[in-house]
Amino acid sequence: MSEQEFIEAFRTTLKDLRQMQKLSQEKLAFKAGLHPTYISLLERGKRKPTLFVIFKITKHLGVTPSSFVNNIQEELLKENEKG
Amino acid sequence: MSEQEFIEAFRTTLKDLRQMQKLSQEKLAFKAGLHPTYISLLERGKRKPTLFVIFKITKHLGVTPSSFVNNIQEELLKENEKG
Repeated sequence: MSEQEFIEAFRTTLKDLRQMQKLSQEKLAFKAGLHPTYISLLERGKRKPTLFVIFKITKHLGVTPSSFVNNIQEELLKENEKG
Repeated sequence: MSEQEFIEAFRTTLKDLRQMQKLSQEKLAFKAGLHPTYISLLERGKRKPTLFVIFKITKHLGVTPSSFVNNIQEELLKENEKG
């Protein structure tokens, strides 16, 4: 897995879960106590998320941190199958 | 959960899994393609791990990224019970 593959899988996972919760990027950032543009930067692959940020945002995405990470693993598998 | 609580749970999780694999900090860093002192810095709470680093190191710790994160969640619960 390259860093680029990881970032793609992460972005997809974050965006899908956020949209399932019907949260805007700004609203999620606000709820998680992050800078208003931070979720947008993450979804565009412009920032590298720390693990602590994952713990902060998943609380508002209706999933545990570990199931968020599991979703990324599944996205990576899908990418590999396509790939 | 404060950032300090998170860091404590992360450090414990990393150290326990690394020692179960009988890997030195330097050996794990080498295997994961990280700077030789990086695992030591993580275990001392001197660096904040990115999620990508978790994907890189867990490959050598005998666990999936999501079960690593699940271990952190369990450590946080233990800390809260002690708390």
